[in-house]
Amino acid sequence: MKDFTNTRRLGIIILVPALLLVGFIAGKKIGEINPQAIEGAESLIGINFTPAEKDSMVGNLVNYRNGYENMRKTKIDNSVSPSLPFNPLPHGFFPNQNQQENNWGLPSNVALPDNDHDIAFLSVAELSTLIRTRKITSERLTNIYLNRIKTYGDTLESVITVLETEALAQAKAMDAEIQAGKYRGPLHGIPYGIKDLFAVKGTKTTWGAMPYKDQVIDETATVVHKLNDAGGVLLAKFTLGALAMGDVWYGGVTKNPWNLNQGASGSSAGSASSVSAGLVPYALGTETLGSIVSPSTRNGVTGLRPTYGRVSKHRAMALSWSMDKIGPISRSALDNGIVLSVINGVDKLDKSTIPAALNYNATKSIKDLKIGYFEDFFEGTRATNEMDRQVLENLRGLGLTLHPVKLETSVDVSSILIMLYAEGAAAFDDMTRLDQDDLLVGQRRNAWPNLFRSARFIPAVEYIQASRLRAILIEEMHALFQEYDVIVTPSYGGSQLQITNLTGHPALCMPNGFLQNGSPVSITFLANLFDEEKLIMLGRAYQDNTDWQKKRPPLFNQ
Amino acid sequence: MKDFTNTRRLGIIILVPALLLVGFIAGKKIGEINPQAIEGAESLIGINFTPAEKDSMVGNLVNYRNGYENMRKTKIDNSVSPSLPFNPLPHGFFPNQNQQENNWGLPSNVALPDNDHDIAFLSVAELSTLIRTRKITSERLTNIYLNRIKTYGDTLESVITVLETEALAQAKAMDAEIQAGKYRGPLHGIPYGIKDLFAVKGTKTTWGAMPYKDQVIDETATVVHKLNDAGGVLLAKFTLGALAMGDVWYGGVTKNPWNLNQGASGSSAGSASSVSAGLVPYALGTETLGSIVSPSTRNGVTGLRPTYGRVSKHRAMALSWSMDKIGPISRSALDNGIVLSVINGVDKLDKSTIPAALNYNATKSIKDLKIGYFEDFFEGTRATNEMDRQVLENLRGLGLTLHPVKLETSVDVSSILIMLYAEGAAAFDDMTRLDQDDLLVGQRRNAWPNLFRSARFIPAVEYIQASRLRAILIEEMHALFQEYDVIVTPSYGGSQLQITNLTGHPALCMPNGFLQNGSPVSITFLANLFDEEKLIMLGRAYQDNTDWQKKRPPLFNQ
Repeated sequence: MKDFTNTRRLGIIILVPALLLVGFIAGKKIGEINPQAIEGAESLIGINFTPAEKDSMVGNLVNYRNGYENMRKTKIDNSVSPSLPFNPLPHGFFPNQNQQENNWGLPSNVALPDNDHDIAFLSVAELSTLIRTRKITSERLTNIYLNRIKTYGDTLESVITVLETEALAQAKAMDAEIQAGKYRGPLHGIPYGIKDLFAVKGTKTTWGAMPYKDQVIDETATVVHKLNDAGGVLLAKFTLGALAMGDVWYGGVTKNPWNLNQGASGSSAGSASSVSAGLVPYALGTETLGSIVSPSTRNGVTGLRPTYGRVSKHRAMALSWSMDKIGPISRSALDNGIVLSVINGVDKLDKSTIPAALNYNATKSIKDLKIGYFEDFFEGTRATNEMDRQVLENLRGLGLTLHPVKLETSVDVSSILIMLYAEGAAAFDDMTRLDQDDLLVGQRRNAWPNLFRSARFIPAVEYIQASRLRAILIEEMHALFQEYDVIVTPSYGGSQLQITNLTGHPALCMPNGFLQNGSPVSITFLANLFDEEKLIMLGRAYQDNTDWQKKRPPLFNQ
Repeated sequence: MKDFTNTRRLGIIILVPALLLVGFIAGKKIGEINPQAIEGAESLIGINFTPAEKDSMVGNLVNYRNGYENMRKTKIDNSVSPSLPFNPLPHGFFPNQNQQENNWGLPSNVALPDNDHDIAFLSVAELSTLIRTRKITSERLTNIYLNRIKTYGDTLESVITVLETEALAQAKAMDAEIQAGKYRGPLHGIPYGIKDLFAVKGTKTTWGAMPYKDQVIDETATVVHKLNDAGGVLLAKFTLGALAMGDVWYGGVTKNPWNLNQGASGSSAGSASSVSAGLVPYALGTETLGSIVSPSTRNGVTGLRPTYGRVSKHRAMALSWSMDKIGPISRSALDNGIVLSVINGVDKLDKSTIPAALNYNATKSIKDLKIGYFEDFFEGTRATNEMDRQVLENLRGLGLTLHPVKLETSVDVSSILIMLYAEGAAAFDDMTRLDQDDLLVGQRRNAWPNLFRSARFIPAVEYIQASRLRAILIEEMHALFQEYDVIVTPSYGGSQLQITNLTGHPALCMPNGFLQNGSPVSITFLANLFDEEKLIMLGRAYQDNTDWQKKRPPLFNQ
């Protein structure tokens, strides 16, 4: 860990009054609230009032605006969550809280490969057995990955901070524990990385964005605490698309190891790219609307987006409080399950967390799962349609019966997404108001600066109505998912990605082929709320009988 | 119960297409979204963007507006709550869930008064003993109150629907149970009334408002189910200020029994007025921002606003999902405690409910309570200041030590109240859009129609920021309330009413004197979240040693 100096803190202290001054000057230009101004605002919300009605509301609108100005005097840190947390639970549905001991069915013996790059591409499950059976030390493993980070990080533009000193210290401590007969579990001594929107005490936490590139948050995210307590060795903080969008960050564009002419997609760009290229065996990502699924697909790795509320977001950057989810990106469904079982759990520091068990038992049979697939999304003549259909064939080849399902809702899903934009604009309220948004690299029309500015005009009433329609969507999707244990879907089929991100359903995304340009594609398994166990069961069976997840990007296979 | 005919349902069926047509015609007039329109909207939110920025956002704003129009195609019933319920719990605070048997310390013997009006003014606690010891039947009690409702209801303009047939049937059934040795508890056979925003199957549920005066909701509110299951006898549905504001309803103005020249205040106008005049021993009210406290004060009765989340709001009219609370209005703190213990409890039909015990033990000593008072609010030379200080003296007379406390917060409380207005405007979205709001009796500038119209322009970002400031307020108030078991305050002291309604803290409001015009005034006791037990303990002690709550309005004392 380098790069942290006190001059940066000073920089922030100087910056804030300067920006307040800009805001003050801008404030001078605010127009009068009169019926003409209201008429302009009416056109944005699609409602007309009579002249007399407009006239009557001027006094209220002046009071409201004074109130906004009063509110803006209080600096609200990104970590302050709304007093209205999202609740994904359908009426009368409560997750199982009876946590049993997990049986991961790890290999009892793994042969140690004779070269470092073969070691680097092993799964967490395999590395775990190697560590536990003392065939490799955490220190050696840590050095292997640190070397790969140094070798390939710049090419991929996937690394922001390397924590070499801390990682080696932790690795040695974990080795000492093994020597002393103390074993913390399957993540003991296993290196990992995180998307640089998780705060780690004593490091920069850049959120991938220029205005925050020197930010230091003097606290550590709950998920990092949990992984370290489980014996994990944090190696690096990886890139993300600025403020959790895309793959463009303040220092460049993160690359897809399978096709360096292509970005890694995002926003968990650095996490997926680095796992793909063997820089770590697993990493944490986050998803608000595709930010685990999309880079996992692009980089050919396995991503698990957990149920909303399962994992604490304490000291993860908030983009959309009601939609943000944290999950693992790794090389297999099983690995993701192991990581999820560690980061799972209610957190008194995050009121959106919901207590729920995560039980996995490798002796359970997939034959007991009732499996559906969104029939419509598997039709078509594109190469990816064929690859998707092949997944169904593979599953049938395992002796499973697949039931066709239709994904239908009475709700206009895309309109509800204003919740994301409004929440994001609130999370970065002062950035927009104080013109810090001009510092962001991405300035296209559909990049955050313009989206956040536009979102200032979304009415609260429509935000609340969207929240109520979302409640209806939750009940409708619950009715659907109650019928099936797992539903198989093309990752971008119909509105499934939008819907399940809004309802908080878990998704497992796995590679199932390659495009002609060398880029991987993926399939997604969905399950009911808090049923990640079933995703891991079926995902593991699929991956045990195929080998897409074992492919290595040729340029990094050394 | 009368008044329900199928022609009214038909009326609704005919009304809806007609209103959609009005909406369609209004829709034709919506203006273009261009930089000039955005400039008008800017003045309402107090932020300026550059011409280029405004130009860039037009496309997004058009998409948003199309989304709003799509959302408006789905009829969202008032009963559909947002997927983001308010959570009043400070970080790390969880209510006690260990429910023990309550010991109310009810009188073992009560002498039956020799005339009906003395019976009518007894407390629930006294009536309960009379019923249990078979000195009076539920049927006789029901008839006494029904007669009073018939005699005085029109004068007070406090009654909307009388449920005579159903009440007498329930009373007889409760008497039969007593005869058979079955006793349901302290509310067994006791008549009560409800604010007419609670749905009861087979009755009109008018919400006090002209557009809904013939509304029939074919379901019964959870609180009514609970009271009836406890042996309660529902006599009547009482008036409320239209859509839960004030005392003006579609049929008139509810009166204060102490001063018929004065309205009963609101919005639980009919509930408080009817209890005050001895038409029922207790009634249910609701409070969003003073609607239990204010009419309890005006009519000289005792109101208990419970902790947010303690009582299910299923099938109560929603005004502000994040602020609405349901509570009892009666003639004593003890009576309110008894009623609250019955309506308390988590409800799978209301996701904002929080599981919590309500334990009361009459043998506990108030000497163990640490009591504070908001010192600043007791200063002044008005008559009410003197009455408020007298309460402190009375409490000191009980041997209690009172600690001066300051009510301070870093948050601008009044600006957060936009949450109420935005939620109300969403709850009555279609009423505003379809011009049904013109039907409401109240059309002043600070009445709902103008408030709901104005609230359409509150931005979602500011609503979310208010929600986050509210989270800060919750933590600040929790820190304050952790120091004290009960805090005594003038009912309208400073911003206490706004603050505790925003944070969800419970409040007990009791009469403590009279103004020169004959109207009562009140004092309020506050406690920490879910600590209503302590309010009842101290309130009971105060009322046992004073007699304000026993006074009867002279015109109705016969």
